[in-house]
Amino acid sequence: MRLVTFEIEHKSGLGVISKDGSWVFPLSSLDMDYKTMQELIENVSDSEKQLLEIAVGQDPYKIKGAAPIQEVRLQAPIPNPKQDVICLGINYMAHAEEAARFKAEAFKGERPFAVYFSKRVSQATGPQGVIPSHRDMVEDLDYEAELAVIIGREASHVPEDKVKDYIFGYTIINDVTARTIQNRHKQWYFGKSMDGFLPMGPCITTVDDLPYPPRLSIQSRVNGELRQDANTALMIFGVGHVVSELSQGMTLKPGTIIAMGTPAGVGMGFVPPRFLKPGDLVECTIEGIGTIANRVVE
Amino acid sequence: MRLVTFEIEHKSGLGVISKDGSWVFPLSSLDMDYKTMQELIENVSDSEKQLLEIAVGQDPYKIKGAAPIQEVRLQAPIPNPKQDVICLGINYMAHAEEAARFKAEAFKGERPFAVYFSKRVSQATGPQGVIPSHRDMVEDLDYEAELAVIIGREASHVPEDKVKDYIFGYTIINDVTARTIQNRHKQWYFGKSMDGFLPMGPCITTVDDLPYPPRLSIQSRVNGELRQDANTALMIFGVGHVVSELSQGMTLKPGTIIAMGTPAGVGMGFVPPRFLKPGDLVECTIEGIGTIANRVVE
Repeated sequence: MRLVTFEIEHKSGLGVISKDGSWVFPLSSLDMDYKTMQELIENVSDSEKQLLEIAVGQDPYKIKGAAPIQEVRLQAPIPNPKQDVICLGINYMAHAEEAARFKAEAFKGERPFAVYFSKRVSQATGPQGVIPSHRDMVEDLDYEAELAVIIGREASHVPEDKVKDYIFGYTIINDVTARTIQNRHKQWYFGKSMDGFLPMGPCITTVDDLPYPPRLSIQSRVNGELRQDANTALMIFGVGHVVSELSQGMTLKPGTIIAMGTPAGVGMGFVPPRFLKPGDLVECTIEGIGTIANRVVE
Repeated sequence: MRLVTFEIEHKSGLGVISKDGSWVFPLSSLDMDYKTMQELIENVSDSEKQLLEIAVGQDPYKIKGAAPIQEVRLQAPIPNPKQDVICLGINYMAHAEEAARFKAEAFKGERPFAVYFSKRVSQATGPQGVIPSHRDMVEDLDYEAELAVIIGREASHVPEDKVKDYIFGYTIINDVTARTIQNRHKQWYFGKSMDGFLPMGPCITTVDDLPYPPRLSIQSRVNGELRQDANTALMIFGVGHVVSELSQGMTLKPGTIIAMGTPAGVGMGFVPPRFLKPGDLVECTIEGIGTIANRVVE
């Protein structure tokens, strides 16, 4: 199923998308009164999940408060993540090559181990929200379409072949990046963590609705032009490896978001580079999850 | 004043340390019912602060629940930080040199800009808590005594000369680090973020109790042997610069913790390196704040 956080009468509520994709059913109508997605992830029971799986096939006219999806304003599925997002760098081979071409000193070299960094987030941006350009300090704003894993239960010392049991679902993030700031401070944190740099959504697709490990087409477009076009099966370090490795030393809590890195085709990969400017519309699409479309503003 | 989070009857409560340092006065006895330090930081008023400043000079026998500080079990002042800790790397010149000597490829080079990274923390360790050695995966466990700044109110686009107004206070952290993991993943995040890698305390000393910018002696000792011995006035990038720079692009929320980097004398700085092993006691001391003393365990 596909779970969403949406705005209804100026408050946020949780919903599930109908099987045909055209309706949002509020969870409150299905006798589930979780206030936030975080609360749902931490507490939802297997029988509640089953109930939701049944509900998505129901006649929308029989569900109180069901709304056509076009009439609903979606927020990021987890609008206020409890912790910063864990990110992977350089996790698709073709992107490793384009990054090294852009700035060898920052991105070149052998990488027998995954590159982990984090992205601060106080407030995630919704699937149609805007991306601030921070023009006073950012001259090279870039996009990165990524599959993000949402952890479902506390994960500590999880062997690779058990990782699937710890995953709640997947969403899309755009790992918006200020390239000069990313590199000049050596560690990438600041250039990844500016306000508005985490568009997310449109939903969380639960783990059982997608193949495992995820083999999903992933694209990004800028003003309609295809820029990134790959498949998550091409990740260098897969979901099983990453969650298992991190969990050996770092207990992952329910609601933890792990962004799995971006494929080739980001702005810095072009010669000359093609960075974002105000007015640009960036769309990130992953098969089975949907599309987020975010416009860059002054 | 010096604020603490302490354990009382298996619950945590807030307290203030008496002027002479020997008593803890529970805030609940002073008609302040904040449940957590985070809540206090977000909501405390100037008049409440004044009341506390007066209270610390009172006769302890007139304050209900006042307890001798040796009889109280202190927790980390902010046991569950709302967001990951923002850290500075290589922010004292002599430490820059020892780090480059240890591993040139990771630490050498010109640094005209501050190095920012983050440290994940679900649960901070108290001032007498233990440091897990993670011996199954960590072969080179190291200590880093650091001054940490606690932000008091939302900071966005703050000019350097106004930064003091946004600081709530200071505490000590030990930025415990797994050196091989820090470096092999290129970005330092994972090697800084393992469970139990954030001892903090013993208190938060509020900003007006210390010189600004902070000129405080800072030391660490391992099994009583002096290892680090410097002054926070020697930081390359000071508190004003760092908070101002970060706030230009990243809104800093009340309760944000910024660890200002460590001076020379960490384990990797010795030839041969002197890393921590189970049984070692690491003490980090900063003038005007106190000492945290944490034993490494298997």
